[in-house]
Amino acid sequence: MSAIQACAEAARTAARQLALFPNSVRSEALRRIAQAVREASGTLLAANREDVRLSEEKGRPAAFLDRLRLTPERIEQMAAGMEKVASLPDPLGETIAEWTRPNGLRIRQVRVPIGVIGFIYESRATVTCDAAALCLKSGNAVILRGGSESLGSNLVLADIFERELPAAGLPAASVQLLRSGSRDEVLELCACGGLVDVIIPRGGKGLVSTVVEHAKMPVLKHMDGICHTYVDETADFAKAIDIADDAKTQRPGVCNAMETLLVHRNIAADFLPRMAARLAARGVEIRACAESLPLMPGSLPATEEDWRTEYEDLILSVKTVGSLQEAIDHINRYGSHHSDAIITENAEHADAFQRGVDSACVYHNCSTRFSDGEEYGFGAEIGIGTDKLHARGPMGLRELTSYQYRVTGSGQVKDPARLA
Amino acid sequence: MSAIQACAEAARTAARQLALFPNSVRSEALRRIAQAVREASGTLLAANREDVRLSEEKGRPAAFLDRLRLTPERIEQMAAGMEKVASLPDPLGETIAEWTRPNGLRIRQVRVPIGVIGFIYESRATVTCDAAALCLKSGNAVILRGGSESLGSNLVLADIFERELPAAGLPAASVQLLRSGSRDEVLELCACGGLVDVIIPRGGKGLVSTVVEHAKMPVLKHMDGICHTYVDETADFAKAIDIADDAKTQRPGVCNAMETLLVHRNIAADFLPRMAARLAARGVEIRACAESLPLMPGSLPATEEDWRTEYEDLILSVKTVGSLQEAIDHINRYGSHHSDAIITENAEHADAFQRGVDSACVYHNCSTRFSDGEEYGFGAEIGIGTDKLHARGPMGLRELTSYQYRVTGSGQVKDPARLA
Repeated sequence: MSAIQACAEAARTAARQLALFPNSVRSEALRRIAQAVREASGTLLAANREDVRLSEEKGRPAAFLDRLRLTPERIEQMAAGMEKVASLPDPLGETIAEWTRPNGLRIRQVRVPIGVIGFIYESRATVTCDAAALCLKSGNAVILRGGSESLGSNLVLADIFERELPAAGLPAASVQLLRSGSRDEVLELCACGGLVDVIIPRGGKGLVSTVVEHAKMPVLKHMDGICHTYVDETADFAKAIDIADDAKTQRPGVCNAMETLLVHRNIAADFLPRMAARLAARGVEIRACAESLPLMPGSLPATEEDWRTEYEDLILSVKTVGSLQEAIDHINRYGSHHSDAIITENAEHADAFQRGVDSACVYHNCSTRFSDGEEYGFGAEIGIGTDKLHARGPMGLRELTSYQYRVTGSGQVKDPARLA
Repeated sequence: MSAIQACAEAARTAARQLALFPNSVRSEALRRIAQAVREASGTLLAANREDVRLSEEKGRPAAFLDRLRLTPERIEQMAAGMEKVASLPDPLGETIAEWTRPNGLRIRQVRVPIGVIGFIYESRATVTCDAAALCLKSGNAVILRGGSESLGSNLVLADIFERELPAAGLPAASVQLLRSGSRDEVLELCACGGLVDVIIPRGGKGLVSTVVEHAKMPVLKHMDGICHTYVDETADFAKAIDIADDAKTQRPGVCNAMETLLVHRNIAADFLPRMAARLAARGVEIRACAESLPLMPGSLPATEEDWRTEYEDLILSVKTVGSLQEAIDHINRYGSHHSDAIITENAEHADAFQRGVDSACVYHNCSTRFSDGEEYGFGAEIGIGTDKLHARGPMGLRELTSYQYRVTGSGQVKDPARLA
């Protein structure tokens, strides 16, 4: 048995125990861990400085180093975030539905933990704490595999989990960190079918593809974030310009940022020059279709490939369409089923767009940047899903649960006549 | 592009259209198909006679031939079953949850179809109609791959779908049947990631394993049905004997039949001889643990392997346990997380058992044979799931749906300060 299989076996056992603890114990453990993280601030900062130094030596880009770096403020945020998750309502034990059958059987559908979650994520120690908090609060054991560049910081956190969980009365294997930092860990974790109930991969497309290719268990994921904003012919221009600006430039590197702007032909000549001026002021490079090109000074011609591209940068593709239906068809064809918006003052158009676009989150008159567990009021999120099974869109505590049918009878059998 | 990829592409297009039709159109199409099946009774019976003849030549067992065989009564049941599904409430469009955020965003979580379903199943033409009805009613396009022995009967049904769907105004590719009957079809369907949203495999363990191994999309399935009945020390013996009899002998070949009986040590000497007498009268072979063996005349000694075996036959393994916890641990270790029951007059024991057993359906004082969509009141079922993601236990119309977030704003952006 490999070290990772042994880890998965231990998680499986821990998960069965963890499922039976009340919310008070799970939440108290989280509060203990939060306090211990605060107290370990010095050790954590020192380990993180070494992580950052090694990544600098490797020539990692500034944005990467920024996500990797811990500060006293970020450590306080990590601890406070765990305390916030601890204070959220218990996601477990809820009776989702309950009914009685004509034969007297009472059927209850009750919310229970999923079991063992494998979480593979980027080099950010703050995510280690978020994930541990969400999984523990939802009664799941978790196997954490953070990016190898954050291993030093993560090991400090793993030591805290290992010490504080038993101190709070919970199995130490409720939260485990894979410690080798090697790529093989990901593949070995993917092979643990029957022990790990679900894998949630977060990070680059390459990583997510590898996990989908090899996982012997269900995967919750999103691959791309090719998000659209469609400016309808009835759009309020001021709203449209502000929303498109926010969706593109407020944080261009994230999955819910806009990559393509679609504009109804009837307003293109009025709207696009104004939009272009705002985008130019933000330093956005525009790749425009043949019709938009002359209306947007300084723009470059778009190719077919642009419609399929997630720039994750201050670059935007722009296309005019002849109808609402053409916008919907473009999004369903080229998009990634993540987050798309319509800007319109016509409620029927908004409705048709929301029904027609096959994406996890479909917005009317607001920015696609709202696709986020925090913004939905979930308190925190483990990720965003763009598949259709189990959970779609932002995933919080409830999306980390399953259900079980508990049926109560008084001697019922399937075929009473046979027994008479 | 392979023929099956082309089929999946067509299903994808059909699914987008199908999702927008109202319940009345989808249900009317089902009623048309049901009537056409009735009218094609003669052709269907002739094709089925040929299917049965070929399977007899191959030496298929009597139970297989019985499932394969159509009769005028069964054809009427197929048609009536589709009409029944047509009359069920629309599973689509329901607002599952709705709330408003402090910034004024109104978030609605709305039930939508999954999209394209791949359904792989046994050689039973009746299942072809059930699956087509459930998928169409839930707004999903479906690619059907029935067992090759029922291909002749299925082709008659596929011709009906192909004719009646466009006649009802729906895309013909909403319901497609794979027609080659070759094994490669299964693997090619599994390769259609991105086009097929989920595969539901039904049948032998070999088939389900193959699908899990190769599928590039989520799979909804159960692999085994190793179901237990635990007779607690406080059990009512008459109830326990009737329930165990029903769970084992009413239809021993199905997945929710009992395979192992666990009995509390304190009642074993009283209970087991009475249970053995009933089981002997039903012709059940008993494989007993060392302690149960002398209490059950005519039983054989059980081996470790027996606790892991799904007999699907009139064979039962029997084990005494020293406590409720030992019963729970045995079930979680050897069971298949499908359906398990406790027989007890003690409500606290029932509660502890239902919380402790990690199975899709956990019963108190009734037979495990109730794990079935019809018995749960779902109207029909596409299968039973034992994994934790998306759907667990019997899967009906609702389990064939996903959801989408539809968010309405009035110009909200993520960072208003940046725009001011």
